Amino acid sequence: MAFNKRVKIKALLAQSPIGETATLMGWVRTKRGNKNVSFIALNDGSTITNYQIVADPNLIPDDILKKCTTGSCIKVTGKVVESQGSGQSSELNAEKIEVLGEADPEKYPLQPKKHSLEFLREIAHLRMRTNTFSAVFRVRHALAFAVNKYFNDKGFFYIHTPIITASDAEGAGETFKVTTLDLQNPPKNEDGSINFNEDFFEREANLTVSGQLEGELAAMALSEIYTFGPTFRAENSNTTRHLAEFWMIEPEMAFYDAEDNADLAEDFLKYLIRYVLEHCQDDLAFLENRLLEEEKVKPADQRSEMALLEKLRFVAENEFVRITYTESIEILRNSKPNKKKKFQFLIDEWGADLQSEHERYLVEKHFNKPVILTDYPKEIKSFYMRQNEDGRTVAAMDILFPGIGEIVGGSQREERLDVLTARMDEMNIPKEEMWWFLDTRRFGSTPHAGFGLGFERMVQFVTGMGNIRDVIAFPRTPGNAEF
Amino acid sequence: MAFNKRVKIKALLAQSPIGETATLMGWVRTKRGNKNVSFIALNDGSTITNYQIVADPNLIPDDILKKCTTGSCIKVTGKVVESQGSGQSSELNAEKIEVLGEADPEKYPLQPKKHSLEFLREIAHLRMRTNTFSAVFRVRHALAFAVNKYFNDKGFFYIHTPIITASDAEGAGETFKVTTLDLQNPPKNEDGSINFNEDFFEREANLTVSGQLEGELAAMALSEIYTFGPTFRAENSNTTRHLAEFWMIEPEMAFYDAEDNADLAEDFLKYLIRYVLEHCQDDLAFLENRLLEEEKVKPADQRSEMALLEKLRFVAENEFVRITYTESIEILRNSKPNKKKKFQFLIDEWGADLQSEHERYLVEKHFNKPVILTDYPKEIKSFYMRQNEDGRTVAAMDILFPGIGEIVGGSQREERLDVLTARMDEMNIPKEEMWWFLDTRRFGSTPHAGFGLGFERMVQFVTGMGNIRDVIAFPRTPGNAEF
Repeated sequence: MAFNKRVKIKALLAQSPIGETATLMGWVRTKRGNKNVSFIALNDGSTITNYQIVADPNLIPDDILKKCTTGSCIKVTGKVVESQGSGQSSELNAEKIEVLGEADPEKYPLQPKKHSLEFLREIAHLRMRTNTFSAVFRVRHALAFAVNKYFNDKGFFYIHTPIITASDAEGAGETFKVTTLDLQNPPKNEDGSINFNEDFFEREANLTVSGQLEGELAAMALSEIYTFGPTFRAENSNTTRHLAEFWMIEPEMAFYDAEDNADLAEDFLKYLIRYVLEHCQDDLAFLENRLLEEEKVKPADQRSEMALLEKLRFVAENEFVRITYTESIEILRNSKPNKKKKFQFLIDEWGADLQSEHERYLVEKHFNKPVILTDYPKEIKSFYMRQNEDGRTVAAMDILFPGIGEIVGGSQREERLDVLTARMDEMNIPKEEMWWFLDTRRFGSTPHAGFGLGFERMVQFVTGMGNIRDVIAFPRTPGNAEF
Repeated sequence: MAFNKRVKIKALLAQSPIGETATLMGWVRTKRGNKNVSFIALNDGSTITNYQIVADPNLIPDDILKKCTTGSCIKVTGKVVESQGSGQSSELNAEKIEVLGEADPEKYPLQPKKHSLEFLREIAHLRMRTNTFSAVFRVRHALAFAVNKYFNDKGFFYIHTPIITASDAEGAGETFKVTTLDLQNPPKNEDGSINFNEDFFEREANLTVSGQLEGELAAMALSEIYTFGPTFRAENSNTTRHLAEFWMIEPEMAFYDAEDNADLAEDFLKYLIRYVLEHCQDDLAFLENRLLEEEKVKPADQRSEMALLEKLRFVAENEFVRITYTESIEILRNSKPNKKKKFQFLIDEWGADLQSEHERYLVEKHFNKPVILTDYPKEIKSFYMRQNEDGRTVAAMDILFPGIGEIVGGSQREERLDVLTARMDEMNIPKEEMWWFLDTRRFGSTPHAGFGLGFERMVQFVTGMGNIRDVIAFPRTPGNAEF
């Protein structure tokens, strides 16, 4: 006997079929009322909106109503009637309530009061039952679907690049080791070193820091591909912007140069924002209010200049600023905070790596718009980025967003075998291990480009959540692998 | 200057704008011809079909044409004309050819001749440039998109469950350890054991074997969710059906019982097949022929009974058989191979675990259809599966596909806290570590169910590829983490 004979609250709200009988299942958010009537706010996760259940104690036994406490799960059948109160158009006059699962009010941690985000992080297994987190995860879903839809509609192919890899040539940071060796008694070579020939992959293996290099292999066959998968950094950074495990989207395109790459990235980011503006109106409205409430306690100069929806529309509708690294250095050198020595790292000469404070100045003070920064000094960028004619810059591109900082990093890739291998030699990148990567430049090479979008940073930007740990279901950070 | 001013071959074939000028970029598959004319078959990965370029040596310099060898990458501009030969409707009269990247015929491994799948596996970085693998990865993309579209359209939310996890309670098999400790000199406790407090997560951590338990947490808040991510098994099995790293899709639904679960799984699998039948016609036609060629050398009784497309249509259009484990035991006990002792493991009594040979007999001989097998003995299934009234079976479900075996495994979950904890005690599952999982049964529990689909097995089924290593870009297996 199929049990799932119910209508979702989202669908019921869309139709409000007055006079018809409906069955709802969901979790009780609140119950209020008096001796003559009870009002239950029911939520089933399909929407931020609770549906009002009206329970007449003459119809619903008292012992049932008593169990309808916050957090309990119930099945309600009744008649859809026009709503008497304000707010939504319909409500349900309960004819039968069945308690599927109780929630002891003495023990259930999510009582109807304000909980801090820090507290909710410790009960991440329950926090999706709150308005804030259910909204965040519905928006996250919509963004993920929009990513796939955007690329599918454009004829890109989704490639699953490997998670476990023996190559760490990108040198993007510290990696996690993956092993099946007995750590207590690992097999050793004669010289006392660990014998990785006996490990699962018969060599040392890590968790990937990026699918880019493998993505390039696929792009050199299928033209336009993207990855969307987890990536890992074993960095001991406890910030609101870093996770040890996070999801990245990495498109890689044959026949694209740096300009094509920037055009695609800008179009893609705007598409994602337009998609959620269209599909997540009620969740975004809730999140906008949440942010306004959160910022009320802040000093005026630390509050956002625009409300959430206004900010999203602004980014979706305006052209991103495109400037070169060299131009940005001029702007920064002549900026007030630089002259007044307010920057922690003063910008003195060309070649300096830009810090978060500089990026924020450019995006939030100088331009007040997303900025695409291009053509960085080759010394501060990766070996695979294409060298420009000037001999000192590469065709790199970072996209900086207000409040978030770097959200996209990419480049045109060095497709010239001789230039690439010379740069690898300069930077001591082992060419032998990278034979497969170099083969793409040996056989049928072509101009190509790509970028990476940190998915959680995008979810942060769209939802207005300040801490990256609040936009992924079960965050992994130093000392934290719970759930 | 944007470089990407070209039309994709797929789009050009769809339109064939006779008389217009077009620019194509892609890789040369073959070049043939004579002194008076050269014919270049160009492929850009957008479709299985090569586009014919006609090059007149009076227009295209000889040194350019010489470099248009198999595997080289070129940019061609010319006029679209009606095709003189058979096959497609249009071809390109080249006015200008630019060689973007050469491919030395002496060294390029993918010369236009038949290569074995085993050889191509060793050059996985190049194999996507072949007809077979480009078709496989386009179909894989279409299937992945269909997965997301199916669930999005039904109101399910995509959840990214953690890859690194400290819990291994499911006991689904051997796990990979994840660590940042110095394996050569790991920190030790006083008793000589390894001090995992100094590891990145301050405890032992593994790669996930399934996102189910975390998926349940999300379903108990958002009703209907799914995961689609990598999972890992450190099993030393070198078969055509196993990978150490593979992608799984795991929907999890509150308010679903076992029947709802089976209904969803059957509908989902049929949707995926219908989607690729509609969107990947030319790739599937190619793969069907490939399979027919491959099977020609096999003895008649080992060939597929149906051609690929016929098989896919058959599965999409017919109801799956649904039988209980108990019924299957009766069928197997009375089957010819059991009576004639042809099974390696003879079916003697109720409670026996079904082996691959038994599953194949049921699916390929007895029913000749996909089979949903339900209600297995609790002893051979996981602790979280819901116990049936009979006290000896659980509401498990395996879906068996011809040629593939188990493609889906799932169950209604045990939502009753007392029954669940009693079963955990019986099976020595540590309840303390699973406090968060048990909380879902403490607070607002409800009937719920879910299943897991092995994505690569689905790709195998749809593409007809016999070895699972040939349907994932860079397979990870014992001793193999190359690329």
